[in-house]
Amino acid sequence: MRGRGDRLAASLSELELDLILVTNLVNIRYLTGFTGTNGACICGPDTRLFLTDFRYTERAAAEVEDWETVTVSDDWLGGIASHLAGRTGFEDDHVSVRLLERLRGKLADGVEVVAAGGTVEKLRRVKDEAELETIAAASELADAVWRWSLERGLGGRTERDVARAAEARIRELGGDPSFPAIVAAGANGALPHAEPGEHEICNGELVVFDMGAMLDGYCSDGTRTFAVGEPGERGREVYEAVRAAQADALDAVTAGIGGEELDDVARKTIKAAGHGERFGHGLGHGVGLEVHEAPHVLPRSKDTLAAGEVVTIEPGVYLPGELGVRIEDLVVVEEDGYRNLSSLPKELQLVT
Amino acid sequence: MRGRGDRLAASLSELELDLILVTNLVNIRYLTGFTGTNGACICGPDTRLFLTDFRYTERAAAEVEDWETVTVSDDWLGGIASHLAGRTGFEDDHVSVRLLERLRGKLADGVEVVAAGGTVEKLRRVKDEAELETIAAASELADAVWRWSLERGLGGRTERDVARAAEARIRELGGDPSFPAIVAAGANGALPHAEPGEHEICNGELVVFDMGAMLDGYCSDGTRTFAVGEPGERGREVYEAVRAAQADALDAVTAGIGGEELDDVARKTIKAAGHGERFGHGLGHGVGLEVHEAPHVLPRSKDTLAAGEVVTIEPGVYLPGELGVRIEDLVVVEEDGYRNLSSLPKELQLVT
Repeated sequence: MRGRGDRLAASLSELELDLILVTNLVNIRYLTGFTGTNGACICGPDTRLFLTDFRYTERAAAEVEDWETVTVSDDWLGGIASHLAGRTGFEDDHVSVRLLERLRGKLADGVEVVAAGGTVEKLRRVKDEAELETIAAASELADAVWRWSLERGLGGRTERDVARAAEARIRELGGDPSFPAIVAAGANGALPHAEPGEHEICNGELVVFDMGAMLDGYCSDGTRTFAVGEPGERGREVYEAVRAAQADALDAVTAGIGGEELDDVARKTIKAAGHGERFGHGLGHGVGLEVHEAPHVLPRSKDTLAAGEVVTIEPGVYLPGELGVRIEDLVVVEEDGYRNLSSLPKELQLVT
Repeated sequence: MRGRGDRLAASLSELELDLILVTNLVNIRYLTGFTGTNGACICGPDTRLFLTDFRYTERAAAEVEDWETVTVSDDWLGGIASHLAGRTGFEDDHVSVRLLERLRGKLADGVEVVAAGGTVEKLRRVKDEAELETIAAASELADAVWRWSLERGLGGRTERDVARAAEARIRELGGDPSFPAIVAAGANGALPHAEPGEHEICNGELVVFDMGAMLDGYCSDGTRTFAVGEPGERGREVYEAVRAAQADALDAVTAGIGGEELDDVARKTIKAAGHGERFGHGLGHGVGLEVHEAPHVLPRSKDTLAAGEVVTIEPGVYLPGELGVRIEDLVVVEEDGYRNLSSLPKELQLVT
């Protein structure tokens, strides 16, 4: 965590802020390491305050360094307000309307609170070495669970059984699922957000298997599409179109490319294969303490990729009532290319 | 879900609202049955609209009855705004400052949005028969996992191992943990929100074991404190003080009692036993789609219990550096008493 408070404080002058109040727990964890469920950071050039309540005093003592911990008893918002001064930013994308109104009622004269959401999220985009190691370990863990799942076989099992077993295996290996695993076979594969259900996976079906692990708060995210037996000509054709689009997009990943530009690389390949209308989501997104975070790799994204960012590259083609294919890797953007954290093969795997 | 929209619509005239916009997903699930991650309800005397995006159109068709489903493409807030009219309530305790500002920018002339948070939460307090059955089933599931845990034995295992195994067992039995299980032995028991850690449970220790299961979205919540071997005179004395307080509080549960009044019953018994300073949290809380919801059973609560509400009764005594005891049942408030959903014994159990 060391230095993150300094980076946050350094970003305030550009925003013409004296202080910033951070209340989003994910951002608090990023800044301080605190993993409890109630806290607030107040940060400025000479201020590093971490506020929590009595339930978490001991945890804060164990987890939080470089921030002075204050235990607020009784009046939580009053406790926060008493430490604010001048022009203070707050996370308008997380603070509720009611909370802001109550906080405003407790401010001293001359204190002004102004919208500053996304400030910490910006800092979180580029990962440091320790973060990259943790995400890589989470990705490795998930890859091991895919291999384990294939060893057990997919055919004849329900989607739900495959998904639940994979989640349990992630936990056995010391992680947590970073989101509920998606296992969608046959026509269900055409619903990008299908819940794994009672459908029994049949021979000849393509199975979209989207999963991630979380370790020490950091997420992985990946997808493979497997064929249980021979998927037929149509399945193979769609698979190869997605694989080509994913390969083209990976080739284009490098620091400095725009999120929209990168998305467009994959979109062009899929369009050329005749499936342009069937790629109904963005190419990718940042991954870190949250499984979806900045930067955004999609049409109309204004983000530009930078070295040290971790993003998914996940084109897909979805033919309603028929089948779906998605192939998703997790990559670290580098100055001159990328490092792929996913170790699973990309050629179509015919499995049992 | 049938009738819930009607009850919500009927509550609007008292609030002088023409419509209410519901965006909290838990409230949306309560009203419509929808379990996806993006949706909004717009409800009024003649309006039952459920809005979602293309990802969830199929799920909404399967889950949502009695509400007209509208799929919004592209401009989500614009889509919502186009259906608002007159004086519309919004959930100011959930809607972020930024979201409200953006929504306001899209409203037609003459549409006014006003704070109306907590309106659906009030409806959720009294459970119907189907809800009570589901919560009872979740509670039974958790009770089975406590028994299973005791059969495996607690002594010599780490707190974390006991907690993780119990959570896995909940999943094996078809539920999900309604929160991360708490297993806190010896002096750790004095930290009401301790994370289960690497401490190996020893002979002579009291173990606070707080756990809940979730079934079909509904939660259970309960706690028992077990003695691994003989806990000694001090442990027994504290245990009996908490047990007496819990029994006294249960005796007082009935429709019409105030949350503060009920809390005070347990607090008096603990005070009489000389531990008044060591009961540092409220006596209980409502449980339903959320593991903590209205009503509140604690000092300064303004809530009055009604038949059909489900609340915890969970006094505790925490001696820092020494030990903790908490005993928590989940009960249904009835016109003339209560029904206890917890089936585990309350006398001190000496286990291995």
